[in-house]
Amino acid sequence: MSGEVREGDYVVLVDERGKKIIVKTKKDELVHTHNGVIDSNEVIGKNFGGEVKTRLGIKFYILQPTLPDLLKKFRRPTQIIYPKDAGLMIIISGIKSGSKVIECGTGSGSLTAFLAHIVKPEGKVLTFEKREKFAQAALKNLKMANLTEYVELRIQDFVEAEVEKNLFDAGFIDIASPWLVIKKMHEVLKPGKFLFSFSPSLNQVQKTVLTMKEEGFLQIETVECLTRNILVDEKKIRPAGRMIAHTGYITYGRKILK
Amino acid sequence: MSGEVREGDYVVLVDERGKKIIVKTKKDELVHTHNGVIDSNEVIGKNFGGEVKTRLGIKFYILQPTLPDLLKKFRRPTQIIYPKDAGLMIIISGIKSGSKVIECGTGSGSLTAFLAHIVKPEGKVLTFEKREKFAQAALKNLKMANLTEYVELRIQDFVEAEVEKNLFDAGFIDIASPWLVIKKMHEVLKPGKFLFSFSPSLNQVQKTVLTMKEEGFLQIETVECLTRNILVDEKKIRPAGRMIAHTGYITYGRKILK
Amino acid sequence: MSGEVREGDYVVLVDERGKKIIVKTKKDELVHTHNGVIDSNEVIGKNFGGEVKTRLGIKFYILQPTLPDLLKKFRRPTQIIYPKDAGLMIIISGIKSGSKVIECGTGSGSLTAFLAHIVKPEGKVLTFEKREKFAQAALKNLKMANLTEYVELRIQDFVEAEVEKNLFDAGFIDIASPWLVIKKMHEVLKPGKFLFSFSPSLNQVQKTVLTMKEEGFLQIETVECLTRNILVDEKKIRPAGRMIAHTGYITYGRKILK
Amino acid sequence: MSGEVREGDYVVLVDERGKKIIVKTKKDELVHTHNGVIDSNEVIGKNFGGEVKTRLGIKFYILQPTLPDLLKKFRRPTQIIYPKDAGLMIIISGIKSGSKVIECGTGSGSLTAFLAHIVKPEGKVLTFEKREKFAQAALKNLKMANLTEYVELRIQDFVEAEVEKNLFDAGFIDIASPWLVIKKMHEVLKPGKFLFSFSPSLNQVQKTVLTMKEEGFLQIETVECLTRNILVDEKKIRPAGRMIAHTGYITYGRKILK
Repeated sequence: MSGEVREGDYVVLVDERGKKIIVKTKKDELVHTHNGVIDSNEVIGKNFGGEVKTRLGIKFYILQPTLPDLLKKFRRPTQIIYPKDAGLMIIISGIKSGSKVIECGTGSGSLTAFLAHIVKPEGKVLTFEKREKFAQAALKNLKMANLTEYVELRIQDFVEAEVEKNLFDAGFIDIASPWLVIKKMHEVLKPGKFLFSFSPSLNQVQKTVLTMKEEGFLQIETVECLTRNILVDEKKIRPAGRMIAHTGYITYGRKILK
Repeated sequence: MSGEVREGDYVVLVDERGKKIIVKTKKDELVHTHNGVIDSNEVIGKNFGGEVKTRLGIKFYILQPTLPDLLKKFRRPTQIIYPKDAGLMIIISGIKSGSKVIECGTGSGSLTAFLAHIVKPEGKVLTFEKREKFAQAALKNLKMANLTEYVELRIQDFVEAEVEKNLFDAGFIDIASPWLVIKKMHEVLKPGKFLFSFSPSLNQVQKTVLTMKEEGFLQIETVECLTRNILVDEKKIRPAGRMIAHTGYITYGRKILK
Repeated sequence: MSGEVREGDYVVLVDERGKKIIVKTKKDELVHTHNGVIDSNEVIGKNFGGEVKTRLGIKFYILQPTLPDLLKKFRRPTQIIYPKDAGLMIIISGIKSGSKVIECGTGSGSLTAFLAHIVKPEGKVLTFEKREKFAQAALKNLKMANLTEYVELRIQDFVEAEVEKNLFDAGFIDIASPWLVIKKMHEVLKPGKFLFSFSPSLNQVQKTVLTMKEEGFLQIETVECLTRNILVDEKKIRPAGRMIAHTGYITYGRKILK
Repeated sequence: MSGEVREGDYVVLVDERGKKIIVKTKKDELVHTHNGVIDSNEVIGKNFGGEVKTRLGIKFYILQPTLPDLLKKFRRPTQIIYPKDAGLMIIISGIKSGSKVIECGTGSGSLTAFLAHIVKPEGKVLTFEKREKFAQAALKNLKMANLTEYVELRIQDFVEAEVEKNLFDAGFIDIASPWLVIKKMHEVLKPGKFLFSFSPSLNQVQKTVLTMKEEGFLQIETVECLTRNILVDEKKIRPAGRMIAHTGYITYGRKILK
């Protein structure tokens, strides 16, 4: 896993002050950093965790990108789901290696990627995106993250799709009108399993909650998750001056048989 | 996975209003709820997702507990790590099924359990707890969560322990003086991999950050994660009046070879 | 102002560890503290800022209560407005000594008291409360704070009341259906002046915003204000574990002549 | 107060969509807005609350700037104190019209202005700023806000200054090393009155708290105040995506005679 860098791999190049860039290695190409040029050929063949120097002699470390690193390179025709929100949903859902997960609204594929990363290698994410353009972007993003083999992406309207009932260990909705697909999600989830819906606006949340109640979900809750960075050095400790104040609300509940 | 309830299984019993209790099933025992008595014998043999009635005729659903559910039954000789913090660390760390993870400060075993849940079945969590009492509580908690086979708990001082170097895919510290074990963590992690430290106080954070810089970690960041519940019904949408304002700060960075 | 304690004055009695009680002084009465009994007669006649001892010899300081101190003694038939929210509204409103202020929904009189404190001695708060019981509680609370002479409380429906038009420097609404009184508030405010509405639920906020737009207000904004306590001593700095996560949303705008 | 606009007055010009600019009126000058040119001569002589049209025929309302409006025009050689923090300190302090207030660290004069606005016309703010450049900026800012007559600004080191003892109703510190002036602040405050210190970093907070304890303050607390904007229209309600995550911590306590 943290073996040798091969051509075509994405790598994080980070200097001693923590400044980094993420690039795809390509033979005979030059990488331009804020601290001089790095020769790709000197990166390929090195071990992840190793180092390389720019022509100015500045040392850079070669790290394997994590999923949150790659997210920065993702095509984004739609808003992505952030690590903080993906992490909370994954923990609550109870999914793990081997789980079967269904998603409606692939978008840029960021949540799809986080889910696939957790359920692989035996599990699977079945994801629906009816807008061709978004689906293509998502596929490229999943490829970058080496996750395509754990994902089945259908370019189709979820409500009309043929999906096996009572099969899935968790469901995730990230579309503008979540209430339209809740009934279908209820059908395809195993009894007792969690459905999640992610929405930026509280009017969406309210309609989602009421529809989930109607369609047979219990223990419905809505939560928002915020993260704040703290700046720390020898002399001071204080929160960063700016933060992302809002991404979306997470609404979830468990399927019961009415 | 969501098959039949067997004697000894933990189950969530939840009524139609979402009120729930978590109990261990035992033959011939009665479960006292806020809505009447349930006969354990009627729960055993049912499918997860099914239902049962109290002697008063009130319907309860039988759900399989998730890890966050079981956390409420965990023995807690120490403060537990909450799902919100565990989820964020897991996502950033990049660990997955098969990863090898090391933890210093098992405490009640809550983070241990979240880690084991993600790395199983091929991965492993090696965790250190030098206080016998905490270790025993953690073992009981891990047993309740069916996760013991993915965890090796050593009742020993981590700094003095013999641990293979450059082996682990992620490291986690949850002790009062994290700075004492950072050097050792650096040794045992694979290059490029993440070390996390969780601390309630900012003085601990500062000392941790400075020691991590010294010992060979890059891209060091500190973040706090907050969740706020939103109350939603037909008539109103508003945040809950009270929230947990603080659990701890997450400090993390990536190992480099100096 | 910080002169001598007279009989009938409220005083804050605080020990050296910061623990305090708030009492009304009364001749020949005993005050029971967590650290022994204090004789009221020894408090009366002392200067504010001075000290007194319990019969156990424990020193207490005699402080003059501030409005936030007195709030803790207020009768509360309704939810009070907290200092954080009152402070923000007062600062934005631009009111000052001499301002004329109008309020609909006196409730317990907490916001009324903060407003009167700022506009006195030449200014005035005209406040409406149609529920007799609340009005009586508010009057008692205002009396405790020595602010009655700056407040005119009318036990009457605000919409039907005769109020001089274009007179007020700021308007404040704290009732369950703010949209019902916005038109009337528009009439009585001076052009350019601010109207504030305080509501716990976002559905109220939405209806308030839309009605304010319709009735002739500009620069409408909604804000929530949160405070978090930080615990600090020689050894540690960290946020308090619990906080008030929600009181209400402040919506405000400026009157224009359509 | 909301009478006629005279030459030299600052005015807020706001269009029907709420977009605004703040300008100082000057005879024969033109004001360039995003919606065409406004002739200053047509603003001078109008009533506050009235309207004016650009040459393109777009209507603008003429509003009197509030202190938070003027803050946007303030020279800022130093970080300003925001309305949210000023409001909270003022409410807790109990200051009002007629109060005598002392400040160490005038900076840009933003807090000075908020304090003067509350204590005028009988009260006074005595403020110290030893850096000539900042003092000159603050004076210009205070002049813009018409508050100079309620402020005495001394360009001098506070600790060495001659100040009457036991005189002030509240004290405010906004310098990098608050602990250096706490002893002096204790001398000049009336017994029982509040001292506030505003600091961005928690290390400053800790040193401030410990020094306040030593020098004779009780009921010491540290609080941070955050505001978050909510976006509301016919279709949606949701928090703004970005917020100011940190300005500074407010530490305060009451003077006692040791």
